[in-house]
Amino acid sequence: MSLKFTVLKSQGMARRGRVETAHGTFETPAFMAVGTAATVKALTMDMVAATGTQVILGNTYHLMMRPGGDLVEQMGGLHKFSGWHGPILTDSGGFQVMSLSNLVKMSEDGVEFTSHIDGGIKHFLRPEDSVHIQHQLDSNITMALDECLHLPTTRERAEKNVDMVARWARRSRDAFIDRPGYGIFGIVQGADFPYLREKSAQQLTEIGFDGYAIGGLAVGEPQETMFRMIATTTPLLPTDKPRYLMGVGTPLDILGAVERGVDMFDCVMPTRAGRTAQAFTRHGTMNMKNARFRDDTAPIDDECTCPACKLNRAYIHHLIKCNEILGATLLTQHNLWFYQDLMRDIRNSIEQGNFAQFKSEFIRKYTNAE
Amino acid sequence: MSLKFTVLKSQGMARRGRVETAHGTFETPAFMAVGTAATVKALTMDMVAATGTQVILGNTYHLMMRPGGDLVEQMGGLHKFSGWHGPILTDSGGFQVMSLSNLVKMSEDGVEFTSHIDGGIKHFLRPEDSVHIQHQLDSNITMALDECLHLPTTRERAEKNVDMVARWARRSRDAFIDRPGYGIFGIVQGADFPYLREKSAQQLTEIGFDGYAIGGLAVGEPQETMFRMIATTTPLLPTDKPRYLMGVGTPLDILGAVERGVDMFDCVMPTRAGRTAQAFTRHGTMNMKNARFRDDTAPIDDECTCPACKLNRAYIHHLIKCNEILGATLLTQHNLWFYQDLMRDIRNSIEQGNFAQFKSEFIRKYTNAE
Repeated sequence: MSLKFTVLKSQGMARRGRVETAHGTFETPAFMAVGTAATVKALTMDMVAATGTQVILGNTYHLMMRPGGDLVEQMGGLHKFSGWHGPILTDSGGFQVMSLSNLVKMSEDGVEFTSHIDGGIKHFLRPEDSVHIQHQLDSNITMALDECLHLPTTRERAEKNVDMVARWARRSRDAFIDRPGYGIFGIVQGADFPYLREKSAQQLTEIGFDGYAIGGLAVGEPQETMFRMIATTTPLLPTDKPRYLMGVGTPLDILGAVERGVDMFDCVMPTRAGRTAQAFTRHGTMNMKNARFRDDTAPIDDECTCPACKLNRAYIHHLIKCNEILGATLLTQHNLWFYQDLMRDIRNSIEQGNFAQFKSEFIRKYTNAE
Repeated sequence: MSLKFTVLKSQGMARRGRVETAHGTFETPAFMAVGTAATVKALTMDMVAATGTQVILGNTYHLMMRPGGDLVEQMGGLHKFSGWHGPILTDSGGFQVMSLSNLVKMSEDGVEFTSHIDGGIKHFLRPEDSVHIQHQLDSNITMALDECLHLPTTRERAEKNVDMVARWARRSRDAFIDRPGYGIFGIVQGADFPYLREKSAQQLTEIGFDGYAIGGLAVGEPQETMFRMIATTTPLLPTDKPRYLMGVGTPLDILGAVERGVDMFDCVMPTRAGRTAQAFTRHGTMNMKNARFRDDTAPIDDECTCPACKLNRAYIHHLIKCNEILGATLLTQHNLWFYQDLMRDIRNSIEQGNFAQFKSEFIRKYTNAE
């Protein structure tokens, strides 16, 4: 186990911490920018760094298809290839295989699938393959291969899932090669059944990982269900390991999850929104395509210090209307900047012991939008 | 007349100069990045500045359609609106009206046209309108409205064109409001008839402008014809005013035109190429989509210091193959960087009195591509 995690301060279940990797440190609670195909879409890595992002997420499924694990390894790993020299976490590829590819067969051994990207060649992804590809990518944090169920699901299906996830987690852990500054996380599943979340957490902590993810949430269930599953899981996880809530979420999701003991997040929301004219602000979200911004001389968010907010809403609106690439670039950077400002404010508030107050003030402002 | 131009050094017809405007200075020979719709496509203005670009060109046709001259004026002008605080030249809109819009009627008074952009509303663009809109845009260098003929054309058509261009130039000059640090350029036409180029140059210098453009070239004629028309025109233009060759061109076009006394250029080539996988290098151009770059660990151009050249060809190739926005952004910046390096080297070589040698060495390397 060779990823260092320090809890610097706690307030209730909320933690202010630090993860140290072979490619530098990131502060928690942390939001990881999604860098699917070795790029955080529409941004240079300098622009990503400027937002305050300290760790990015790479998608193993996309990268194994294009340009391939062998090629990235030959290029010296994902850091060198992409020019992002900070910490990188990669997912296992399992979620995308099951949602984006043409699933051929799922078995105890692994997943067989084809993809339109390479013309339908058959691929096989077992826990050992996923860990090997993530090793080729030189990922600082490897995720164990799991199976993510859609909600709602049946108790029977979820029970089988939890047990197989544990067996795959064991195989992933065994395949992982320990190196200083690198680690592997297991993923707690269990759908929306508290007793299965508990069982899964117990199975994974018995195997022993450098961190624990909570998977299978933010898949369509109500926020209340998600919060309940998090609150069920985090108390069963070791306090000296980081906890990562996968694929989450809105600013309000993040605040609720931090309150329940989560340290790490990733979500396409800020970056995807940036390519679809949606802007995050401290007063809620705005659709920059809206004609009311045509002659609006205010910045997107007057408390934001990002480059887009040195310009005005009328200009951003103009770029979006003209389908200019710069519109997507500026909005993506703004949204990521907004998310990282939120994470920084969360970290500061935990340090200062006033997280609860910060949270309620943020929510009040964010939901009483304009 | 209130645009200051200084010739710092000459070598043959080639000149090393400086233009001073209300929004700063640019060194000549200068390459203006094309910023059609208040954005140099795919780049932030910081990225544009990093390339060494000192002056950008805005397209009056695009801007009058979207977001409109009134709106840009209300926003405080193009500099403030776009965040480009350096010098801006705008074209007259005439070239695009005649090439991009649905021309309804062309008369002595002006051009009537419709555009799909605003659902076919009839617009009228007279010389006075063009100058007014460029004033609203707060352009440092206004271009007189002209009519650009396609080549080849007839002598009769070209004669009529030259005379009307002179009358429109007079009306444009009269409509222009002199201000310190702002100026207006006339445009020499005359197709590929030397006697008409001479006549047009004489007509325009009689009116008197802050600078003179050579228009109606790079419209499909051989490079040799273009060079001959430039060489016919520049000796007839005042030596104390800048000369601008519109819409040109390739690196070799630029070198030949500088040799014949041209000071300013604009062209979509580097920026458009950046969005279509073409990379400029000191050894010629490359199509980055080509499979041979799949595992190429060299930078695009090993003499280039741009951000893309800190990464390798394999990464750029990967981005292009995945249709990632970052591919267009990095290549656009690289190409503009390449053009500005060329302009800087041209300026240095004129200063040092070895332009001819620089030119022949550049051409040898550029055309003996790999």
